[in-house]
Amino acid sequence: MAEYVAPLRDMRFVLEHVVGLEELAKLEGFEHADPESVFGVLEEFGRLMSEVWSPTNPVGDAAGSTLVDGVVHTPPGFAEAYARYVEAGWPAVPFDPAYDGGGFPWLVGIVLQEMLNSANMALAMAPLLTQGAIDALVHHGTEEQRERYLKKMVTGEWTGTMNLTEADAGSDVGALRTRAVRQDDGTYRITGQKVFITFGDHDLADNILHLVLARTPDAPPGTKGISCFVVPKFLVGDDGALGERNDVVVLSIEHKMGIKASPTCVLEYGGRSQGAVGYLVGEEHAGMSAMFTMMNNARLGVGVEGLGLAERAYQRAAEFAGERTQGRAPGAAAGQRSPIVEHPDVRRMLLTMRACTEAMRALCYYQASQIDLAARHPDAAARTTAGARAALLTPLVKSWCTDLAETVTSLGIQVHGGMGYITDTGVDQHYRDAKITQIYEGTNGIQAMDLVGRKVPMRGGAVVGDLLADVRSTVEELAGAGDAFGPMHRELAVAVDSVEQATAWLMERGLADPVDALAAATPYQRLLATTVGGWMMARSALAAGRLLAAGTDGDDDLAGLLEAKVITARFFADHLLPEVRGLLPAVTAGGADVMALTAAQLARP
Amino acid sequence: MAEYVAPLRDMRFVLEHVVGLEELAKLEGFEHADPESVFGVLEEFGRLMSEVWSPTNPVGDAAGSTLVDGVVHTPPGFAEAYARYVEAGWPAVPFDPAYDGGGFPWLVGIVLQEMLNSANMALAMAPLLTQGAIDALVHHGTEEQRERYLKKMVTGEWTGTMNLTEADAGSDVGALRTRAVRQDDGTYRITGQKVFITFGDHDLADNILHLVLARTPDAPPGTKGISCFVVPKFLVGDDGALGERNDVVVLSIEHKMGIKASPTCVLEYGGRSQGAVGYLVGEEHAGMSAMFTMMNNARLGVGVEGLGLAERAYQRAAEFAGERTQGRAPGAAAGQRSPIVEHPDVRRMLLTMRACTEAMRALCYYQASQIDLAARHPDAAARTTAGARAALLTPLVKSWCTDLAETVTSLGIQVHGGMGYITDTGVDQHYRDAKITQIYEGTNGIQAMDLVGRKVPMRGGAVVGDLLADVRSTVEELAGAGDAFGPMHRELAVAVDSVEQATAWLMERGLADPVDALAAATPYQRLLATTVGGWMMARSALAAGRLLAAGTDGDDDLAGLLEAKVITARFFADHLLPEVRGLLPAVTAGGADVMALTAAQLARP
Repeated sequence: MAEYVAPLRDMRFVLEHVVGLEELAKLEGFEHADPESVFGVLEEFGRLMSEVWSPTNPVGDAAGSTLVDGVVHTPPGFAEAYARYVEAGWPAVPFDPAYDGGGFPWLVGIVLQEMLNSANMALAMAPLLTQGAIDALVHHGTEEQRERYLKKMVTGEWTGTMNLTEADAGSDVGALRTRAVRQDDGTYRITGQKVFITFGDHDLADNILHLVLARTPDAPPGTKGISCFVVPKFLVGDDGALGERNDVVVLSIEHKMGIKASPTCVLEYGGRSQGAVGYLVGEEHAGMSAMFTMMNNARLGVGVEGLGLAERAYQRAAEFAGERTQGRAPGAAAGQRSPIVEHPDVRRMLLTMRACTEAMRALCYYQASQIDLAARHPDAAARTTAGARAALLTPLVKSWCTDLAETVTSLGIQVHGGMGYITDTGVDQHYRDAKITQIYEGTNGIQAMDLVGRKVPMRGGAVVGDLLADVRSTVEELAGAGDAFGPMHRELAVAVDSVEQATAWLMERGLADPVDALAAATPYQRLLATTVGGWMMARSALAAGRLLAAGTDGDDDLAGLLEAKVITARFFADHLLPEVRGLLPAVTAGGADVMALTAAQLARP
Repeated sequence: MAEYVAPLRDMRFVLEHVVGLEELAKLEGFEHADPESVFGVLEEFGRLMSEVWSPTNPVGDAAGSTLVDGVVHTPPGFAEAYARYVEAGWPAVPFDPAYDGGGFPWLVGIVLQEMLNSANMALAMAPLLTQGAIDALVHHGTEEQRERYLKKMVTGEWTGTMNLTEADAGSDVGALRTRAVRQDDGTYRITGQKVFITFGDHDLADNILHLVLARTPDAPPGTKGISCFVVPKFLVGDDGALGERNDVVVLSIEHKMGIKASPTCVLEYGGRSQGAVGYLVGEEHAGMSAMFTMMNNARLGVGVEGLGLAERAYQRAAEFAGERTQGRAPGAAAGQRSPIVEHPDVRRMLLTMRACTEAMRALCYYQASQIDLAARHPDAAARTTAGARAALLTPLVKSWCTDLAETVTSLGIQVHGGMGYITDTGVDQHYRDAKITQIYEGTNGIQAMDLVGRKVPMRGGAVVGDLLADVRSTVEELAGAGDAFGPMHRELAVAVDSVEQATAWLMERGLADPVDALAAATPYQRLLATTVGGWMMARSALAAGRLLAAGTDGDDDLAGLLEAKVITARFFADHLLPEVRGLLPAVTAGGADVMALTAAQLARP
């Protein structure tokens, strides 16, 4: 099997022509992120991923991480792959220069994340969780905490974790019971058990900073009584040197369907002492705010996991389909056997994989660009607008990219036929890895509740209204763009009409009866996300069309890329975007039937 | 985890009120299959599945079958579970009394297959493949072959296999190279290697009858030169006693993503001799006809695998959702935590699983009833009609039920949240098992090619036309059935219109350009299958409505079942059937864009 190769040409196209890297690079602090520098960075990083990370991926799936005498061992090759990534300074790229970060746009960091995930998603989870922890400290930590911990986390020398879940508190974070008791010296003693802690222990880094949600003795019940603490695996002295081992113990690691190399730990805090030493991050009882900071960052990151897996699955399927011969395709000479890529139904599968992957890429990068604008745009109103759009898109990116990852990796197996089901082939790994992305960092159902409960109502519906207005401008542009854009115009117009009807229904009925809104949440989320995906594809196609019209100066490679963008977008419009036609009835059906069956009726036998 | 419990009430409802078991039981030879006898049989079989087969399923997933010194060992408990099934005479139920079969309708056999698959799909593959081999011998074997082999296969004392695939000949059966050389005594010597042979060896039975496709020395190329042979693991003497071990050797077994307990063998024929001894089944060069007999039987069987997995996934998800508490559902008192089944989005997932499973069940049973009518109806024209409908439905049942199995088992994990991803929970097994059903016995893409290439054109489109006319009658019936049936009426009418447009397009364009038809094949298959699924749900709901109107005599259980049928069918109409609205654009888009990209464009990086 060939290793992963970064799809640099498509990445570059999206950065330059869909999400406006050049404009971003003009913002204060991003001056060094001019397109040519960025593309140089991406090319170099792509090499590391192909040569060093990608070969470790099947090794990790086969060996898994293991727990021996209370210590987690990552699979062969992981420590070296991680060290190479750290030594070259890659983890720092998108972080604040104040903490020795590279000061590149978040957008660039997201492109790197895509590559990390395509090459080895299980290993990529170490930096992903570290980013979440960094974000929590940047936004909520004290100056002293930032000083003490951040630089080593930015360089990747230390990693971070997010400790939210307990056995009885999953989606229901407010039910958590881990205790934190304040000491006279201002530190806290943490006792309790956390589950599903990604990279809760490992042998990749010298220290681990656990961001832990816990409850102080006098805390009110529910989410309003949760505080956030940083609990280092090894205490860190004033001089930055590692001190005593804190009382955080790995009780077990989970055996999972996928991401077997990522150690998913049950962590016990303070079980062998009066409590693990922890330091309050932010105010007492304000932990949910730190949690949302970590989660929002991680939610885009999980969407990007879906994108990375989809890209890898596509590459392998396209390669296999070009090599495997079976049967005679239409138009082939009698007696000739054709590579299966010549069979229309195999092509249909490949185009589906490709179109989904390109839509996901454009959407993830667009979301990242909005995060950058929200942070850096000189105009306050523009920052607010971009921030609101990013907030609206977060559940869409997380849920849609991970649902599509399931579809795309499933098709990746299907293109391989029976060989796809054999573990030696290895494409089943992507499918098994993908399934977790629909679940963690808030299940996709939780995303849908966030969307209809918090995001759509923002500014009385105006945030989603602004988005739809932008989609409508693209519809108008498509109308004048010629026959090649006909299916995009037709289907995007249908889509935006459907979303408007669905949104109006939600705003009216959802306020009257939360059951109706909640029953509609998932189909609404899919409807809006697919429409936004279709918008991204249409914008890509329009940009490609403009570039083609301007002439490609005999650059056949570029012309081929641009033509492929238009064709792939048209395929998306004909084959994938029309799904929206079937979603409006589900949104507007209401919740009565959904809730009607009694427990006895639901338990069928 | 609770073990599988046969959904006897729903099975009974479908048998009695959707597919007409009572009418079938009036056909000659089926007199003993009156509904009460059948339900007694099902109840007893359900107990065996719950108590004996179901507990072996996770054991099989964990241990897998193993190959030690050339001998396949099935996982702990499998031999006993299989023996209990054989000792009680269950395998014989649907077979011809002439070979000691029970003479029950195929329909009843299919209900047993559903239970086998819900309880342990991997083990259920042994009888499934045996049935295919039985069918091949019944229809194509000599009287002497039937005498020698069939009775022991019907009782399950011996099992059968289907040997089609070779490393270079998968979907492209015509490319196979296994050789068969005729000897002076009329037997053949078989040499060659077959791959992906399910239960190619095992320790469940004393003998294995391999049905093997091979090529005689003078055979024309392609499928027209293929002959079919029966190759016993142990030669069988004239007295029925087992004789010499034949030269069939297991070279290896595959490591797979799922169905790990089912030994998938690479078999070598004649590698240590002048060839394995084989006996011609049917005429030389007519092997494809035997293959299609095996495959058609197996294709319904694979659809039923999807159904069985979906039912099991639903049962487990419904059970978990009733027990697991997280968060507060709408309407629950402040501070109360609710079982997740009270959360609308969890309900939506459960209802989706349930509606899909019920639609699959009705469709599979309906297909089986058509097979019975085709075999036994006293009127020749009715036999022909039923046979044509069964032929049309075969690719739909195989592809749709297996695609839905992926959806339903995926939701089964999703309902479990993070716990669903942990292998100890065990629901990931159903998802991993389900994936193969979309691939084997003809990938779902091959089913779609069969549908548009062979089935839709039957009688100039009249077979699909007759089906749509029946759907239209149901639409009319729904129109007069009252408000409760409104969504079913609305969506089934849209669906049947869409299928008619799509079929007309296919018949016209498909003949003109095979690429257009082949590019449309999968979306057309989904469109037609979803419509037929919606038809099944509507027929179920109408039957339930009639029974409710007639009164249930204070039988609250029955009333609850009937009400649930109507609600579940309405959910299907609102949430699942509207998918058809999005499929017509894909069908009629044509093949140009699908085939447009060059090899260089497809290989993205």
